[in-house]
Amino acid sequence: MQPVQGLLDPEPQTALTPKGCASLTEMKLPGQEDSEVYSAHENGSTGELDSGPGSGPSPDGSSDTEESKDPLLFIQLNELLGWPQALEWRETGRWVLFEEKLEMGGGRWSAPHVPTLALPSLQKLRSLLMEGLVLLDCPAQSLLELVEQVTRVESLSPELRGQLQSLLLQRPQHLIQTTSTRPCWRSAHPREASRGEEALLKEQRQNSLRQKLPPGAEAGAVLAGELGFLAQPLGAFVRLRDPVVLGPITEVPLPSRFFCLLLGPPMLGRSYHEMGRAMAVLLSDPQFQWSVRQASNLDALLAALDAFLEEVTVLPPGRWDPTARIPPPKCLPSQHKRLPLQMQEVKGSSARRYGSPAEDRHSHAPQAPSPELQRMGRLFGGLVQDVRRKALWYPSDFLDALHPQCFSAVLYIYLATITNAITFGGLLGEATDGAQGVLESFLGTAVAGAAFCLMAGQPLTILSSTGPVLVFERLLFSFSRDYSLDYLPFRLWVGIWVATFCLVLVATEASVLVRYFTRFTEEGFCALISLIFIYDAVGKMLSLTRAYPIQRPGSPAYGCFCQYPDPGGNESQWTRTKPKDRDDILSTHVKTSRFFPSVVRKVLSDFSSVLAILLGCGLDAFLGLATPKLTVPREFKPTLPGRDWLVSPFGTNPWWLSVAAALPALLLSILIFMDQQITAVILNRAEYRLRKGAGFHLDLFCVALLMLLTSVLGLPWYVSATVISLAHMDSLRRESRACALGEPPSFLGIREQRLTGLVVFILTGISIFLAPILKFIPMPVLYGIFLYMGVAAISSIQFTKRVQLLLMPAKHQPDLLLLRHVPLSRVHLFTAIQLACLGLLWIVKSTPAAIIFPIMLLGLVGVRKALEWVFSPQELLWLDELMPEKERSTPEKGLEPEYSFSGSDSEDSELMYQPKAPEINISVN
Amino acid sequence: MQPVQGLLDPEPQTALTPKGCASLTEMKLPGQEDSEVYSAHENGSTGELDSGPGSGPSPDGSSDTEESKDPLLFIQLNELLGWPQALEWRETGRWVLFEEKLEMGGGRWSAPHVPTLALPSLQKLRSLLMEGLVLLDCPAQSLLELVEQVTRVESLSPELRGQLQSLLLQRPQHLIQTTSTRPCWRSAHPREASRGEEALLKEQRQNSLRQKLPPGAEAGAVLAGELGFLAQPLGAFVRLRDPVVLGPITEVPLPSRFFCLLLGPPMLGRSYHEMGRAMAVLLSDPQFQWSVRQASNLDALLAALDAFLEEVTVLPPGRWDPTARIPPPKCLPSQHKRLPLQMQEVKGSSARRYGSPAEDRHSHAPQAPSPELQRMGRLFGGLVQDVRRKALWYPSDFLDALHPQCFSAVLYIYLATITNAITFGGLLGEATDGAQGVLESFLGTAVAGAAFCLMAGQPLTILSSTGPVLVFERLLFSFSRDYSLDYLPFRLWVGIWVATFCLVLVATEASVLVRYFTRFTEEGFCALISLIFIYDAVGKMLSLTRAYPIQRPGSPAYGCFCQYPDPGGNESQWTRTKPKDRDDILSTHVKTSRFFPSVVRKVLSDFSSVLAILLGCGLDAFLGLATPKLTVPREFKPTLPGRDWLVSPFGTNPWWLSVAAALPALLLSILIFMDQQITAVILNRAEYRLRKGAGFHLDLFCVALLMLLTSVLGLPWYVSATVISLAHMDSLRRESRACALGEPPSFLGIREQRLTGLVVFILTGISIFLAPILKFIPMPVLYGIFLYMGVAAISSIQFTKRVQLLLMPAKHQPDLLLLRHVPLSRVHLFTAIQLACLGLLWIVKSTPAAIIFPIMLLGLVGVRKALEWVFSPQELLWLDELMPEKERSTPEKGLEPEYSFSGSDSEDSELMYQPKAPEINISVN
Repeated sequence: MQPVQGLLDPEPQTALTPKGCASLTEMKLPGQEDSEVYSAHENGSTGELDSGPGSGPSPDGSSDTEESKDPLLFIQLNELLGWPQALEWRETGRWVLFEEKLEMGGGRWSAPHVPTLALPSLQKLRSLLMEGLVLLDCPAQSLLELVEQVTRVESLSPELRGQLQSLLLQRPQHLIQTTSTRPCWRSAHPREASRGEEALLKEQRQNSLRQKLPPGAEAGAVLAGELGFLAQPLGAFVRLRDPVVLGPITEVPLPSRFFCLLLGPPMLGRSYHEMGRAMAVLLSDPQFQWSVRQASNLDALLAALDAFLEEVTVLPPGRWDPTARIPPPKCLPSQHKRLPLQMQEVKGSSARRYGSPAEDRHSHAPQAPSPELQRMGRLFGGLVQDVRRKALWYPSDFLDALHPQCFSAVLYIYLATITNAITFGGLLGEATDGAQGVLESFLGTAVAGAAFCLMAGQPLTILSSTGPVLVFERLLFSFSRDYSLDYLPFRLWVGIWVATFCLVLVATEASVLVRYFTRFTEEGFCALISLIFIYDAVGKMLSLTRAYPIQRPGSPAYGCFCQYPDPGGNESQWTRTKPKDRDDILSTHVKTSRFFPSVVRKVLSDFSSVLAILLGCGLDAFLGLATPKLTVPREFKPTLPGRDWLVSPFGTNPWWLSVAAALPALLLSILIFMDQQITAVILNRAEYRLRKGAGFHLDLFCVALLMLLTSVLGLPWYVSATVISLAHMDSLRRESRACALGEPPSFLGIREQRLTGLVVFILTGISIFLAPILKFIPMPVLYGIFLYMGVAAISSIQFTKRVQLLLMPAKHQPDLLLLRHVPLSRVHLFTAIQLACLGLLWIVKSTPAAIIFPIMLLGLVGVRKALEWVFSPQELLWLDELMPEKERSTPEKGLEPEYSFSGSDSEDSELMYQPKAPEINISVN
Repeated sequence: MQPVQGLLDPEPQTALTPKGCASLTEMKLPGQEDSEVYSAHENGSTGELDSGPGSGPSPDGSSDTEESKDPLLFIQLNELLGWPQALEWRETGRWVLFEEKLEMGGGRWSAPHVPTLALPSLQKLRSLLMEGLVLLDCPAQSLLELVEQVTRVESLSPELRGQLQSLLLQRPQHLIQTTSTRPCWRSAHPREASRGEEALLKEQRQNSLRQKLPPGAEAGAVLAGELGFLAQPLGAFVRLRDPVVLGPITEVPLPSRFFCLLLGPPMLGRSYHEMGRAMAVLLSDPQFQWSVRQASNLDALLAALDAFLEEVTVLPPGRWDPTARIPPPKCLPSQHKRLPLQMQEVKGSSARRYGSPAEDRHSHAPQAPSPELQRMGRLFGGLVQDVRRKALWYPSDFLDALHPQCFSAVLYIYLATITNAITFGGLLGEATDGAQGVLESFLGTAVAGAAFCLMAGQPLTILSSTGPVLVFERLLFSFSRDYSLDYLPFRLWVGIWVATFCLVLVATEASVLVRYFTRFTEEGFCALISLIFIYDAVGKMLSLTRAYPIQRPGSPAYGCFCQYPDPGGNESQWTRTKPKDRDDILSTHVKTSRFFPSVVRKVLSDFSSVLAILLGCGLDAFLGLATPKLTVPREFKPTLPGRDWLVSPFGTNPWWLSVAAALPALLLSILIFMDQQITAVILNRAEYRLRKGAGFHLDLFCVALLMLLTSVLGLPWYVSATVISLAHMDSLRRESRACALGEPPSFLGIREQRLTGLVVFILTGISIFLAPILKFIPMPVLYGIFLYMGVAAISSIQFTKRVQLLLMPAKHQPDLLLLRHVPLSRVHLFTAIQLACLGLLWIVKSTPAAIIFPIMLLGLVGVRKALEWVFSPQELLWLDELMPEKERSTPEKGLEPEYSFSGSDSEDSELMYQPKAPEINISVN
């Protein structure tokens, strides 16, 4: 299916809220991960942005091909205006998903909006159809034949019939917006009618609307109006046997199957206009269309109309302005529930594949673990399974990267990665008294990252030496210094032991335990890491300010003082935070603005981070601020003078230390397992709609091997980095571009491939030699990126929203689904416990007790388990998720009271329609 | 009528958009000024914030008393839950204007939202009522009697009847939110039923909801649910003859007139719940309520239901999620159109007073000039009329000021005024080489301002020597210097002539010509003044930065340099713009935040500008920045050394100069007339809902007298200042506080009085002696206020919105009514012409040709007149307004084609519902 060009742009969004529908609902619904694919197989109006040349093999057969289904209908309402003097047809409305109204005075189409109808117009339409002509499977092959068929009504005299026929054949006025975007009236005035059919067809083809409709789309025409010479109303509904292009009637030269004529003598109000709109809205409803296609007689047609009426939403008068135009909702209700039984069978396969709403509704109770997390029950069983699964996708992992978006992602992540390498390399050098440094950090990042991208189960992961592991390494160094140990050899043995333990964990399929990592654990960990990012960025910035304080008139700076530029060149008289601020502003606002055409804005927002960096650098250079710049080592040799690249196995250490190293290695293994797997769980969330699956065992296996490699070479240790990996995934989002006439873009998935990561780390490797260029980048700009990533990550988690609730009076709180089902005091209690855990973790991390940090992290899972004594399963279902045991130990009836109580269709459907989009999310691109 | 305490807070608004409904529509509709008072007399739910102790006499009888009308209904839905084991009634929904739903799990009420119904539930309700029991004017005096009446149904056996009666008498569970804001379940469990009725009543009275309902409100109870022992559905609708408090059934102890019972055997879906909701929504509809009050039999009841159905808005399935909760719209459609004929007659007086929608719709064509602008046809006729009209309001002009809001307004305007006095006084001193200065500016402002506030027709006006008049004075000075004239005597004669000319203009009632000042002129002028404000503020700020440049490493500042604090104390090493930025942020964000309770936010936002200034001063003091501070003269004597306060009439000038002064005086008179009257037109706009009327002639008369006075004393010349006056009015906005259950607050008018202005100018006079205190205010903070006022004023005019349209691609443009009726290219043309005029004015103002500036300003009216050759009346109607001649020369049919063409009910009603709020608007408070 060919991509459908967007008529509408992405809705304005602030960059820090989860994208797409999540910003509407803001809550994750347990067990509903997979249900939001309606837009991918409803109406066919949502094309994929670009499937790329290498969609490649689809091992599980889940490529997004469409089942045979009704074509998309473009409905057009032509209205008869100017009675009695100057009769003419004019297109006054059009519908695909939503309604566009002709602004007669303004000479433009309105923005697409949800059509609203008056109930009487539907009832009048019904009676007009009942008395009128209904031709099902009409064999007409052209407009002329159709008009003859339609006017073959007894009540018409031959003369009137002739008049009516010529009127119906008259060319209507369309407001065609050609590709030149200058609207022009295509008139059917007699004086212009002499232009040939040729010209008309050319115009119709130039119509930019046509390029936005998917291939296979059909048109439908509704003709309505007042005609004084008719004695009684004339209603006709035609379903053509074969779709026919009805000449000039529709603005796009698409074949039409449905044709509706609603004429009559002048009467009060705008009845025929409203009836025509009602007919058009009916036809644009997929279920009505389906029913009418199957209908064999008038009764079936009327039954379809009645079925439509059964399902309409009614807004009371006086509480709603009926003329208000409702913008298209971000999320449409699923059509599954509405489909008639036969149609559901046709669509069964897709519904089953994605999980039908009915399944989803109960899926939280007997939630089956995902295939990646099923225990094989034999040594390395999970690893073998992972390798098998991923091998199938391996070629596509490279072909899928051939998309311009990946270029932007590479640039962005590359900058984040080298910032990471520089910053944490610097920290490492500081922590280990120069035993390791920036060069090791660069080299390690490049080698480990590239290797991981080539081998891992989830190649979108970006490795980093950030966070808890770095804290642990610092502890290890001070320990070895205190006991006068040879650090790197000791570290080598710790690494060897950790790798061994990790391999044991892989062999025993310990990764299936990640099922116990619920949102509570994930968000606690994510919040911690984000806070570390923010803390470090702000801390770095403040340390710069401290180093070069603001000069105050009252300070000792008054009087005479001398300042010379520092010979090193990386000191400044005063460092402004300007570049950092600019970062945030640029990346947040660019895409949401109403100004500039969407193409310009898309480019700007795709490269916003790069632009922000360039702008920061440019501003820095323009103002000539002597800010500290990125420093890249100039020589390729280990930081520790005199050591070889290969770490000697013993050095000056006693032999038994190689055994004793197993003890710290045990703690480090726990830490690495937790760090690695929580990140992996977050990255492999169902909301991201990853098609190629996860590889928890394989990932851990790779981490173990890299642990060995980096220990031998004396490079930093690496695990998956939550925040940068999320930024990486986010920069590879696929969104539907289509949005025919008002449909919001929907999240389709992530460009899963290995190439972006690989290129990023190759570039990182090359960067070791890029010192002359990179040295122009001011560090504050890079800290800005860090700060932004941290803020974005922490802003996007549910935990943060709950913390905000603590500060809000109840009546101002947003309408979160959570709050509809859990009393506020319970929500606050849960948040408070989480805050306390986070505070404890932060304290432990910052004190000498940091060595037990891994166990504390594991303790999070225990705290979560203990919460089952405090909170009911229902509450935990809404606040967190259920832990796996619950699946079996709590019988399903345990969850029933809640549902039978408020137990309602409407409540359920509320849950069902809640769309899913990634929860933890960084919206940079 | 007593004020209704707000259940909901003001909707979040950005401070720079017009408040209230205008932010929804963003466009002014010609001829619709007065139609938006529905909220003041619909449902009685909108009380005035506080009418103040001195609402005083109402000469035109237009005090906001309510006509006799239906009371506000509070509807409660009690649902029967727990069949078959544990039957209990629970309140699950409540309605006043909007619906609040019980969040069973969350133990809270949902936010108020627009109720949505399913059509089938309305139809089921209809048939249940048709078959059920309908008791109209039932004489029951208590719940017991009512229950007996309702259960007197043939189909029930005596045993069942007893069971049913005891069930109906069972006390329902209410979620009562007491004033302590901690929700608590008021249970009716048997074990608690022993508590006396006393306790129940206490609880009901403590209910915070009750305090929010206006006196006279009634309750209505709908009881619905499934009852297994019933063989067939039991529907009963009761209208009590006299409203009775139905004991524990409703959560508030209000008398109930309507009671509805919908019970039946269990069936599919949540039918009874939905039917109950449908009944509640019906009862909360004023028209249905009215009809049911009049109904004499079942048929009338059903007819009322059918009438309701006729008017509902229908949203198609699949395009709208039926479970989505629609937040209350900012503007409700007018109820006038919906009222039955009889009711319209009852309400006739109010409809006529405010102009019914039907009148408004056509009022743009034969628009009668407002009474203030009707030519009397005799010398000083207008002035006499003005004095007569304003004299009636004079006492109330002081009593109406007794409201805390006025205190805040005084503080804000005082600060703006002294900023003005300082800044323009400084400019004046500079322009006149010290012939006048800051002291004259202070004194003149105080004297002229206070006198104007005491005498003027529009006492909300703040006088100022700003803008074009200052430019003119500068020209006059350079002229007199070039020709070696004695400036102040020459200026005295110019002043005398100007006063004379102005008195002639008053005598000839020239002010009626302001009818030719359309929006085009007003907005051009307003934009010009705003730009001057912004330009001056930014210019001042930049001049400070230039005076103390940013030190760059490459600059000569490198090396050794010495800095000492300036002895004068008003110089700084570098001046930050921080305080200014803080201003804007504070005033914009505070009120819209969701955090903190509304009382705290209201106080914060009311005093936001004062707080911003204090914060700026505090920050300045804390950081010890040596920013330039406000300087106030220390001695009370004329700036020009040696001159007396009275200017000598000739000085060293030749006698004939007193005659020649008539020539520049003529130009200055034009300028003053334009400046004064455009401001007066803007201030007296109908959107502001001023009750006390304008006084164009009186205002000009005062300006003339003050011109004489200031010329004699050698003080600056004063006219009305647009921006500060608007800020003054804005700080005195009255808004409805009520907003029962979701209704947005509405703009009620301005606190029109003379006291705030008077106090401001008395304070300004005193400020001459306040030098020791005022000197702590840094100038950048004051420039910030200027900048903010300029930006706020320019942001709020339609012209700015049209300029923004120039930059937006068509599809991203907001859905302005304007754009629905005027082709974009024509809108752009109009904007471009306006921009060109503005540019020309700016250039003229900035060059030596500034002397002809007054004539150019007059030329704006001419340009607008010439536009009638370029644009059609319809286009001008939407883009601007029609000029007065059009009323007579263009026959009404000239406007017809547009209306008969798209000529539609729905289109019209769109126009009708467009609410009005002030267009040019500064939202500081």
